[in-house]
Amino acid sequence: MSSSNDGQTALAEGAKVDQDAVQPFPKSRKIYVKGQQHDIRVPMREIELHPTPTDFGGETNPPVRVYDTSGPYTDPEANIDLRRGLPDVRSAWIDARGDTERLETTSSKFTATRLDDPKLASLRFAHLRQPRRAQAGANVSQMHYARQGIITAEMEYVAIRENMYLQQAREMAAADQRVLTPQHPGQSFGAAIPEEITPEFVRSEVARGRAIIPANINHPELEPMIIGRNFLVKINGNIGNSALGSSIEEEVEKLTWGTRWGADTIMDLSTGKNIHETREWILRNSHVPIGTVPIYQALEKVGGIAEDLTWEIFRDTLIEQAEQGVDYFTIHAGVLLRYVPLTAKRVTGIVSRGGSIMAKWCLAHHKESFLYTHFEEICDIMKAYDVSFSLGDGLRPGSVADANDEAQFAELETLGELTQVAWKHDIQTMIEGPGHVPMHLIKENMDKQLRECGEAPFYTLGPLTTDIAPGYDHITSGIGAAMIGWYGCAMLCYVTPKEHLGLPNKDDVKEGIITYKIAAHAADLAKGHPGAQLRDNALSKARFEFRWEDQFNLGLDPDTARAYHDETLPKESAKVAHFCSMCGPKFCSMKITQEVRDYAAQQEAEAQAQKTGETEELVVRMIDVEAEMQQKAREFKEQGSEIYVKPSATEKS
Amino acid sequence: MSSSNDGQTALAEGAKVDQDAVQPFPKSRKIYVKGQQHDIRVPMREIELHPTPTDFGGETNPPVRVYDTSGPYTDPEANIDLRRGLPDVRSAWIDARGDTERLETTSSKFTATRLDDPKLASLRFAHLRQPRRAQAGANVSQMHYARQGIITAEMEYVAIRENMYLQQAREMAAADQRVLTPQHPGQSFGAAIPEEITPEFVRSEVARGRAIIPANINHPELEPMIIGRNFLVKINGNIGNSALGSSIEEEVEKLTWGTRWGADTIMDLSTGKNIHETREWILRNSHVPIGTVPIYQALEKVGGIAEDLTWEIFRDTLIEQAEQGVDYFTIHAGVLLRYVPLTAKRVTGIVSRGGSIMAKWCLAHHKESFLYTHFEEICDIMKAYDVSFSLGDGLRPGSVADANDEAQFAELETLGELTQVAWKHDIQTMIEGPGHVPMHLIKENMDKQLRECGEAPFYTLGPLTTDIAPGYDHITSGIGAAMIGWYGCAMLCYVTPKEHLGLPNKDDVKEGIITYKIAAHAADLAKGHPGAQLRDNALSKARFEFRWEDQFNLGLDPDTARAYHDETLPKESAKVAHFCSMCGPKFCSMKITQEVRDYAAQQEAEAQAQKTGETEELVVRMIDVEAEMQQKAREFKEQGSEIYVKPSATEKS
Repeated sequence: MSSSNDGQTALAEGAKVDQDAVQPFPKSRKIYVKGQQHDIRVPMREIELHPTPTDFGGETNPPVRVYDTSGPYTDPEANIDLRRGLPDVRSAWIDARGDTERLETTSSKFTATRLDDPKLASLRFAHLRQPRRAQAGANVSQMHYARQGIITAEMEYVAIRENMYLQQAREMAAADQRVLTPQHPGQSFGAAIPEEITPEFVRSEVARGRAIIPANINHPELEPMIIGRNFLVKINGNIGNSALGSSIEEEVEKLTWGTRWGADTIMDLSTGKNIHETREWILRNSHVPIGTVPIYQALEKVGGIAEDLTWEIFRDTLIEQAEQGVDYFTIHAGVLLRYVPLTAKRVTGIVSRGGSIMAKWCLAHHKESFLYTHFEEICDIMKAYDVSFSLGDGLRPGSVADANDEAQFAELETLGELTQVAWKHDIQTMIEGPGHVPMHLIKENMDKQLRECGEAPFYTLGPLTTDIAPGYDHITSGIGAAMIGWYGCAMLCYVTPKEHLGLPNKDDVKEGIITYKIAAHAADLAKGHPGAQLRDNALSKARFEFRWEDQFNLGLDPDTARAYHDETLPKESAKVAHFCSMCGPKFCSMKITQEVRDYAAQQEAEAQAQKTGETEELVVRMIDVEAEMQQKAREFKEQGSEIYVKPSATEKS
Repeated sequence: MSSSNDGQTALAEGAKVDQDAVQPFPKSRKIYVKGQQHDIRVPMREIELHPTPTDFGGETNPPVRVYDTSGPYTDPEANIDLRRGLPDVRSAWIDARGDTERLETTSSKFTATRLDDPKLASLRFAHLRQPRRAQAGANVSQMHYARQGIITAEMEYVAIRENMYLQQAREMAAADQRVLTPQHPGQSFGAAIPEEITPEFVRSEVARGRAIIPANINHPELEPMIIGRNFLVKINGNIGNSALGSSIEEEVEKLTWGTRWGADTIMDLSTGKNIHETREWILRNSHVPIGTVPIYQALEKVGGIAEDLTWEIFRDTLIEQAEQGVDYFTIHAGVLLRYVPLTAKRVTGIVSRGGSIMAKWCLAHHKESFLYTHFEEICDIMKAYDVSFSLGDGLRPGSVADANDEAQFAELETLGELTQVAWKHDIQTMIEGPGHVPMHLIKENMDKQLRECGEAPFYTLGPLTTDIAPGYDHITSGIGAAMIGWYGCAMLCYVTPKEHLGLPNKDDVKEGIITYKIAAHAADLAKGHPGAQLRDNALSKARFEFRWEDQFNLGLDPDTARAYHDETLPKESAKVAHFCSMCGPKFCSMKITQEVRDYAAQQEAEAQAQKTGETEELVVRMIDVEAEMQQKAREFKEQGSEIYVKPSATEKS
């Protein structure tokens, strides 16, 4: 990373992709599934597996396909150049709809100023497109199309993506593969997950507001994804510079790193210098939806004084960002003047940045915020670009003590009203949620959100289930995230170990993302998402059969799994050994289990034989088996230690 | 750590305590609370706090006492010498009961052999006590006393320990401290947590089997603790060498390290060399209960051949370990012959080491295991030393696919029957549980355990809520652990990041322990344990008031919190700054909240004034306030960046 002049000079010429983000995953290949109705190719990662060792049965194990958020970065065929941005995926689809126009110039005054500033030349992304906007009177939101009965390319794309596990399960069933152990029926608390995710199902969910496909028409690099209770649970990773640190290139690096490990969307929460240019680089190099909190940038524009914010400045900021391609906006329109005093007796008051900015504005002017009073005008902007609402929870609790209080729930009720307004305009909408909530109060949040907001997707931060572990809030919140995901939350905003303490570095981003992938997948399993258990089963089968490499490669983080294993048993040979370092060669329970299987098979044969009158012969065979087992035990005793003891802790280096 | 000759030579002379384990916690002091009925002193840690900054109110903040598992190691007055072991806490109590006798020699043949072996001199703990045993016909279990209506010193000890938070809350209420924000009422799923934990309540819970106090009469170094659904949720940390690694001194180091961070009990799962001597060192230096799985050592004694195990060898092992002072034994007596074939079709068969050993024994001999057939004889040994049962779940699921299956639940039912047998002998008993279980199937485990086992304490490993994250199974399992703790599980067995991959090192032990402290505390909050939220509230208040040092010190891991903070804002001055690195100086929501409070106070005064007719004056004051605020805003604008911008990311080193 360059570091001269805040690390930003000459970025435009020298920007390089983080090499860590373009490494292929081990034993994985990128595959693309074609659409039936549209010219689309949906990316997936396919993990190749070893055959089962002979003494466990010797069968082949079909490759396992997994949901792939890593984008073109892990495609060896892709030509990655941050300076040019990612390939255009969607423009042809958007053109085909014939309801947008290319603008000669940007509609934002602020953007125009930035473009005219020669001092910014070295920072600026070089290959800017002309912005696209809906033709006069048109509404280009996916929700609008859905309500017209139109299945867009984006909808078919996400249907294929979401249906992947089920599709795979079917193929395996057809091939009679043992990996297809039946999945546990889920408990979905009233979700309506269908047996098969079809394009029509996607359309119907978007139409009724129960799911959103954040996909700004100015973000053609996007690989579409869907956020909704009846789809796989998604996670968001936050990036963004602040007044105190990090360069543009670092932010792009966090994007490619975060999506490599599983971020489904990325929020750019920058509050520092050059927000506009940073965002351009991020968008042009992002295959996942990008969300922002426009009020942060608006506040920068008025020198950080909340009272000086105006609707005009905010409006221009929305247009600026919409024409760059931001896919969803967090708008804290539910912070009403009368709710603000409800936070006064809290232990931690208002902890949302956006919430506190708006609260301050409301107090200073003693009136409702322009976000609330101009809400329908905001809708008009959203539908001209298909920006989705993420209605912000400005009054979310910042401590366990403040969870589920009057202020929080009052705002949620207002967000429910605003959802109806947004839906009147066919604007895709999700709702943000807490925060800090002890376990037993989490479900109330989910239930109330579904009720108040007509099942619009819920998008929560954590929640953190205790306040006493600074440095480990990815874990305090991962617990709450898994639970609320199970209860019906559609997207989980990650928390890193640095929460409350500092800005996350690359390791923290990865730790937060993996934690949240765990939470999301645990929720998918509990909800009974069709086929979700397939990866668990394949990994567990590999574990049982001592296919170490397969176990690593099927995991969320093959690198860490392999490194941990190698700390104790570094030898390559240990990776095929039929034991592991925890139990050593003698205590291997999995080895013993194989003997149990042999015994059970024998028992079954015996039972079968008794039915057909061949008892006598079988008794003889049983005795033989026992004699053989004793013989094997003796052999094991004599040879075991010599065969297996080689890789020992003394070989640690 | 010495490393010659497997690191074990001359240990007896040179053993030194790990210096990391005897560091005082920051701003903390060890206090002891005296008993009313017995000569006991119960340790707690008291964390001193700074006063609230003047602009937030300026009040003093009372010190916060926290449950302290770190033992004498963090008492600066204690004279720690591993070679002599810890001070004797309990012998006087045991003597006073007058129902035990000192044995001239050990009752275990194996122990005698070890003591006679001159080659082991350099490994041997030097200050061995004569073992103690119940007088003929006596039963020295805490359950037996409880059922006689006797409140032992141990019971009063744990009552004071468990009642600490409530006691503290009362003191704060009396002093009218703001930190005493009311706690959320919990949801305890039928637990019977009283308003106050009295010695009599402890007695009654032990008497009816709903809680255990693992406290072998040969473990006088013990600081008693209690495991039960109506008490604080506890966690266990596993240590133990294996055939592949780690020395005695390393194991003692893991003990002191694990309890420093919060392990309530430690299980020694050693399977390698010198198990007997390792255990002696661990016990003599452990202030927490030690659990073992005796079958591991018994198997060592027969050269690792499960079929060669006999009741006589096992019995001698129980006596050997009981006379050393082991507080609880995992006994896999529920693995019945007829259950073994039920595991044959599983994805991961039998994954419990103890379970697979017993399964193999049952198959090889084609009869029920000696653990089951000699169960009442085992009871006779347990009650002569007050060793508690931890009835092992040898058939627990090793993958999500195998969760809650017939084999698992059949064994659980048998454990329920065995609980009744143990209780007939007044033996303290807890039940071990899974394993790998998706979220939605966890509660069924808890409910069935309570039902089948008469509310005997449940002690679970995790459960892991997904199989797909090797390297992160502390997190996959921490989610399940928090949930099952909430549902009623009494103790959570930790899982480290190395689970399934290798042996945990010191960092892994700490990571596992902290994760499980989070899970246990999240469960206490959700159950509504009286006063449990006090620490959360104190930390959140400190966070809100920018008392950084207090925030670190009140956390589970002050060192990590401080280190993370210092990565971004290393300056000492930043620790009193009224902002943090995430938002920078302008966006500080907590600062704005203070303004909200001022506003709300003003509103309230206004409302009050209107009632009393002083409206006019107040309007004037309001205008003044607004003018002042605008003035402050201008000042902030002019000065803010200069005052606060100093500590920036460029200062990272």
